[in-house]
Amino acid sequence: MFRHVKDLQFEAKPDGPNAEFARRLQEILGGKWGELTVANQYLFQGWSCRLPGKYKDLLLDVGTEEMGHVEMICTMIARLLDASPLSQQEAAAADNPMLAAIYAGQLPAHYIHAGGGPLPADSNGVPWSGAFITASGNLMADFQLNVTAEAQGRLQVARLFNMTDDPGVKQMLRFLLARDTMHQNMWMAAIEQLKQDGLEDMPVPEAFPDAEQETDFAYRYIDFSEGDDAAQGRWAAGPSPDGKGEFTYQPEPVAHAGAPQLPPGDPRLYGTQPGPDGVLGKVKDAIT
Amino acid sequence: MFRHVKDLQFEAKPDGPNAEFARRLQEILGGKWGELTVANQYLFQGWSCRLPGKYKDLLLDVGTEEMGHVEMICTMIARLLDASPLSQQEAAAADNPMLAAIYAGQLPAHYIHAGGGPLPADSNGVPWSGAFITASGNLMADFQLNVTAEAQGRLQVARLFNMTDDPGVKQMLRFLLARDTMHQNMWMAAIEQLKQDGLEDMPVPEAFPDAEQETDFAYRYIDFSEGDDAAQGRWAAGPSPDGKGEFTYQPEPVAHAGAPQLPPGDPRLYGTQPGPDGVLGKVKDAIT
Amino acid sequence: MFRHVKDLQFEAKPDGPNAEFARRLQEILGGKWGELTVANQYLFQGWSCRLPGKYKDLLLDVGTEEMGHVEMICTMIARLLDASPLSQQEAAAADNPMLAAIYAGQLPAHYIHAGGGPLPADSNGVPWSGAFITASGNLMADFQLNVTAEAQGRLQVARLFNMTDDPGVKQMLRFLLARDTMHQNMWMAAIEQLKQDGLEDMPVPEAFPDAEQETDFAYRYIDFSEGDDAAQGRWAAGPSPDGKGEFTYQPEPVAHAGAPQLPPGDPRLYGTQPGPDGVLGKVKDAIT
Amino acid sequence: MFRHVKDLQFEAKPDGPNAEFARRLQEILGGKWGELTVANQYLFQGWSCRLPGKYKDLLLDVGTEEMGHVEMICTMIARLLDASPLSQQEAAAADNPMLAAIYAGQLPAHYIHAGGGPLPADSNGVPWSGAFITASGNLMADFQLNVTAEAQGRLQVARLFNMTDDPGVKQMLRFLLARDTMHQNMWMAAIEQLKQDGLEDMPVPEAFPDAEQETDFAYRYIDFSEGDDAAQGRWAAGPSPDGKGEFTYQPEPVAHAGAPQLPPGDPRLYGTQPGPDGVLGKVKDAIT
Amino acid sequence: MFRHVKDLQFEAKPDGPNAEFARRLQEILGGKWGELTVANQYLFQGWSCRLPGKYKDLLLDVGTEEMGHVEMICTMIARLLDASPLSQQEAAAADNPMLAAIYAGQLPAHYIHAGGGPLPADSNGVPWSGAFITASGNLMADFQLNVTAEAQGRLQVARLFNMTDDPGVKQMLRFLLARDTMHQNMWMAAIEQLKQDGLEDMPVPEAFPDAEQETDFAYRYIDFSEGDDAAQGRWAAGPSPDGKGEFTYQPEPVAHAGAPQLPPGDPRLYGTQPGPDGVLGKVKDAIT
Amino acid sequence: MFRHVKDLQFEAKPDGPNAEFARRLQEILGGKWGELTVANQYLFQGWSCRLPGKYKDLLLDVGTEEMGHVEMICTMIARLLDASPLSQQEAAAADNPMLAAIYAGQLPAHYIHAGGGPLPADSNGVPWSGAFITASGNLMADFQLNVTAEAQGRLQVARLFNMTDDPGVKQMLRFLLARDTMHQNMWMAAIEQLKQDGLEDMPVPEAFPDAEQETDFAYRYIDFSEGDDAAQGRWAAGPSPDGKGEFTYQPEPVAHAGAPQLPPGDPRLYGTQPGPDGVLGKVKDAIT
Repeated sequence: MFRHVKDLQFEAKPDGPNAEFARRLQEILGGKWGELTVANQYLFQGWSCRLPGKYKDLLLDVGTEEMGHVEMICTMIARLLDASPLSQQEAAAADNPMLAAIYAGQLPAHYIHAGGGPLPADSNGVPWSGAFITASGNLMADFQLNVTAEAQGRLQVARLFNMTDDPGVKQMLRFLLARDTMHQNMWMAAIEQLKQDGLEDMPVPEAFPDAEQETDFAYRYIDFSEGDDAAQGRWAAGPSPDGKGEFTYQPEPVAHAGAPQLPPGDPRLYGTQPGPDGVLGKVKDAIT
Repeated sequence: MFRHVKDLQFEAKPDGPNAEFARRLQEILGGKWGELTVANQYLFQGWSCRLPGKYKDLLLDVGTEEMGHVEMICTMIARLLDASPLSQQEAAAADNPMLAAIYAGQLPAHYIHAGGGPLPADSNGVPWSGAFITASGNLMADFQLNVTAEAQGRLQVARLFNMTDDPGVKQMLRFLLARDTMHQNMWMAAIEQLKQDGLEDMPVPEAFPDAEQETDFAYRYIDFSEGDDAAQGRWAAGPSPDGKGEFTYQPEPVAHAGAPQLPPGDPRLYGTQPGPDGVLGKVKDAIT
Repeated sequence: MFRHVKDLQFEAKPDGPNAEFARRLQEILGGKWGELTVANQYLFQGWSCRLPGKYKDLLLDVGTEEMGHVEMICTMIARLLDASPLSQQEAAAADNPMLAAIYAGQLPAHYIHAGGGPLPADSNGVPWSGAFITASGNLMADFQLNVTAEAQGRLQVARLFNMTDDPGVKQMLRFLLARDTMHQNMWMAAIEQLKQDGLEDMPVPEAFPDAEQETDFAYRYIDFSEGDDAAQGRWAAGPSPDGKGEFTYQPEPVAHAGAPQLPPGDPRLYGTQPGPDGVLGKVKDAIT
Repeated sequence: MFRHVKDLQFEAKPDGPNAEFARRLQEILGGKWGELTVANQYLFQGWSCRLPGKYKDLLLDVGTEEMGHVEMICTMIARLLDASPLSQQEAAAADNPMLAAIYAGQLPAHYIHAGGGPLPADSNGVPWSGAFITASGNLMADFQLNVTAEAQGRLQVARLFNMTDDPGVKQMLRFLLARDTMHQNMWMAAIEQLKQDGLEDMPVPEAFPDAEQETDFAYRYIDFSEGDDAAQGRWAAGPSPDGKGEFTYQPEPVAHAGAPQLPPGDPRLYGTQPGPDGVLGKVKDAIT
Repeated sequence: MFRHVKDLQFEAKPDGPNAEFARRLQEILGGKWGELTVANQYLFQGWSCRLPGKYKDLLLDVGTEEMGHVEMICTMIARLLDASPLSQQEAAAADNPMLAAIYAGQLPAHYIHAGGGPLPADSNGVPWSGAFITASGNLMADFQLNVTAEAQGRLQVARLFNMTDDPGVKQMLRFLLARDTMHQNMWMAAIEQLKQDGLEDMPVPEAFPDAEQETDFAYRYIDFSEGDDAAQGRWAAGPSPDGKGEFTYQPEPVAHAGAPQLPPGDPRLYGTQPGPDGVLGKVKDAIT
Repeated sequence: MFRHVKDLQFEAKPDGPNAEFARRLQEILGGKWGELTVANQYLFQGWSCRLPGKYKDLLLDVGTEEMGHVEMICTMIARLLDASPLSQQEAAAADNPMLAAIYAGQLPAHYIHAGGGPLPADSNGVPWSGAFITASGNLMADFQLNVTAEAQGRLQVARLFNMTDDPGVKQMLRFLLARDTMHQNMWMAAIEQLKQDGLEDMPVPEAFPDAEQETDFAYRYIDFSEGDDAAQGRWAAGPSPDGKGEFTYQPEPVAHAGAPQLPPGDPRLYGTQPGPDGVLGKVKDAIT
């Protein structure tokens, strides 16, 4: 169950309106790596968590914080959308050389659909999708996803930081950058903790019996692109990070099975295939 | 540029047909964490890579291998779809108690749309989406995504392994499990290598100036869900994994900005808002 | 900003596992009219609301409650997914005539992707989309959407109630039915309140000047389908509900403009169109 | 069965070309609340209607009219796309200060994909989706959706009206505004009629037995967001609009169930969970 | 403008209910090659057609007919959905061995969302998308698409014909098969007509100047997959179907450009790239 | 199995940066008719092909080539994205009148999400979808689709050719135009070959028994749009292209079935329908 506090976790007030930058901010609201993603991802992971205690608490804590970040960015976008020209005529009339570009670069749906408010969509106006989140039930796999989610997210915020001069916008981004620093560290710490607690290890899922996989292929680097630069990497020789194997390098790919031949299908599906008396018979003949 | 070899990297031949299991295999072909995802993700990362040498080679090598895994699973699915009942009547007529369930659990589109072949879709029949892949230009963020992609992928393959008794299917899955073991290790090694080469570090992007973020919030765990189990985790105290800070724990969230008040918007958007003479004035009055 | 309470608003515990019914419940979790929709819709409407006071508070109150309903249904689905057969062999082996159907009717992604947990998707496994929600900035338009959202939602819950005998599931649905009753009434009351407060009226947007529309067509019912049954309805005669007009009935549609003729387009787009010297000239001639 | 009349219901001819405004018009063609939505929604509701007579006729009448509005807007967009600069060079060369903004703000797909014609997509170029429409079989729920569809639609047309000076465009929008006025009134009248005919009432579905829901929660307003502004609304006290209850106000949310504990899942899914001998056992141990 | 006739173009009445087959029929209603696709595709092509006369008339004729096919299949699906078990209990209780499979194989959304009516979706329940249709403005390209649309459509109808024994369903499918025969022939005839009228020819767009393309590559078959079976085909030697060239066969691909080297990007995007003093410099150094 | 060659099939190097044109190029990379579509479509058709020999080889050859075209366009886009203004301030500061338009017309996601690299998306930023491809198992239906894919593709490339003055971009487009010429011809030749080999013919599927369709409707043109221009076309009289019939022309549509009446549905679905004692009874009465 949730409760809402009217105050914001951090200020979300631009120094001036800017519809074109509002569009850019949509990427960290409703884009693949935006706040809607991390909020829902951590909450679904928490609700699905079958291990009571600190991990479940962690997921619900941080998912709830991210809901408040959704709120902050929504608020910022609504404020950036104020006082913008609504038509080409207005954009042209203004005595501001950048205004035409701001008009042309905005998302018209911000006004036509949302009346000057945020959209649950990315910077292209493509709606946020439930497919952006994963809660697999395996915390190691998911915490690694969470590390990258925070890394991709911080990367996008840092890029946006370099795209604006508005002090109010920059101030909110500074806060998000700090929280993404914390959250990257936090998920890395949680991975360490999982290992310390003996709950999961690499490769995920560790519980799958090693002997059941084709062990010959489990630590072999195979080079499929011409050139052997990759042979110089850490991944081509030496012990594997999971501590269970030794990397080897194979300079050319090898095929371990012949070219597949599919049998004729059911003739009632009317696929093109060998007829009953050889390659060039018609499906029609097979049926009649 | 690519070249195609007709032989398969590894055998992809079931011992018997099974349309319902063919549907399940779609998840690792065209699902969010399936082979289409890793193949395209690594290739796009490789093509966008601005650093010549071993990293670019690595990405193109492995992306190319994954295209061959797409081919193997497509072949397996086509073979599993053979010799299945096409209608309820046939399913009912057969002397096999599971056949009705196999019929009911199949994806009808496998036959109606694809004529007994694979679909670029997940186990629900939802099409694969370009949104499943990310190539951010930052290799640390992307290699972490690649670790989780291989972890989620191996997890799904291991689950599918426990859902079938078909020796031929299990054999192909054993191979995929081994390659996912290699690839998890490989991307972890690549992360180590990036750090050793001094190219990137945590938190991503490391190049963003530390002082520009709100440093007070960069290593502070804030508890937003009642209960303090999370305080016992590695993420609530001690040095942060990036080596730059010390975790602190804050038991209750604090709001750092007041409740936001949005100004009235442009009345020509007909939003509901305070009129010119107070809260209860109509937009209509504002216009006329 | 949000805070999370570990306890549930209402119990969400089935009397027994049932993977097939878990799939059905996805419709009210991640379907178009599910809890993810109402939660996000009300919160976005609240965050975009430019009128401080009771309306904004209302939206944030109820959006926050709905987040707790998302949590309840997620919990219920996770519990329904326990102890289900993972393979055809297990389904066939069990001494339970319905188990094969439960196996065949489940969403395999519940296990392969989510490891026995809920998905942010509908009963087909199609992901929830940001396009499901609207926050237009006009509270009258949006409150009407909210009435239908609660009506469609209650309809779906009532149908699900008739599809199960599980007492624990039915108990949670009884609670949701009651809250949907409240929320339908609440949004209807909010529509009344908007009118009483003089903030908005029908037709939306009331502030658009009546004289600016083609008034001849503003209260005229036009019959486009053969048969005149519709002439007997309340909408074909008598005063219009907005109190501003009188319905009239026109038995046959009338065209008010001739058949459109599009001019030739830019020949560099290679469209098929009249050439410079008449209908049958080639685009090629127009270019050269 | 349908028949097509070549003439248009109303004129759809701009006074001049304008590719950027053509993009904006896409919102009311292929956006969530555009003409494709209402046309298909009413037709599907009509085809699914199990009640012969005036309601079915009404739905098919109006759905058919809306198909003609799709045609009008398609025609308008095709005309607006004429005579636009195709390249940056042309845009720069023209002696028109707004032309660069018109070029930059257009949807390039209008030319590259559609050759200067309309797209079944919204103003972002996101394709129209079947998920935009609902035909639930319950006319009360659907007529309420239809009211909001016409309200959202008229709101968008009114906003577009304020974004253009083109007399021809404005003239078509005036017509659409009038029809949306009629259609809002019509669906409200249809709701009245449903009640008069004794077919359905609030809350939807009225036929669900009142006693089967948790009646304690059916008329209680619960405040989940700090601040009690909402207590002053019509929805917090007094008789409920359905005439069956009395609103009450509860100032704080109450949890009615404890924190959920999920049991361990099937170990073959490799979820992170308590092992057989306590919290910190590995899944691996559970399997072996 | 359209008018609707209540009678159906052809009968759409099954001999008995069958919810599982109703799901299969969704593929030809709302699937990629279903009736919603052809109806909208031909209408959009007609509305965008800049050539008055027989071609525009043809497109509007047939698009309008297809709307009536949408209606027929919707009607058929609504009838097939009657009298089905709503719950596992009912399915189990019935004395019909196939009923459990019919229950398990149905789309639950048919009942929960649509109340026993059709959905604008495919056989997986994935919504119809505007991306399924193309109206390019070039009639030759589009008529070829229309040929394949009718071919794919007839193929799917023929497959469905083999999946049912219901005489009423088969009767409707017989009609659709015949119309698809007509429409395949019709679009092929329209391609002939375009050529005869001198409006367009192969390759599309014919008006693009031959000399402007890299003519060396315009008729050369290049073999990228090992094995030279393809050399035996009509496409590897002899005159090209457009009458303008002679096919040649190149047994191995040749690269015509070196491996691409991307320059360092803007350091403010934090991509991984060579630093100012060589490959292993950090982005951080580039910034500071 | 695939192998990758680092060199490009053809040069992909612009003479200068241009972020706005990079956006346009996305249409032929990740749009419906872009290179990702043809590459995946031909490969899936090849993998599903049940006829060994020249057709399967052809599909795998050309699919593999198209993967190299994906690579070329990705490379071109990455290069076009260099050296662009990242902010409004930079765009305004530059002494280049088109730079503001280039800034406003870019896809911000190119920088925020992809760090200056290509996206698997179209020119609107909408992600590529697996629904764009079809592999039906019937080669005639699919080769016709392939003809139109190459025709639509060449049309788009030709349009883009007319939208740029950059010599390097134009050079790559010249190559793509030539390959699209080859591929259109090749698929037409493959259609001829299928007929010559006696494998399939028109109408698809030829093997469906002629007598099983409603033959009366198989060659009849029916006019559903007012005006009889279409009667003058090749499709309204004379022999049908499949050589099996004679076109006839029917000037008015005829309905062959009465208006459909749907029976009442299951009252537990709460649809609006006739009650047990006539039209106006409530569903409620039917239940109680």
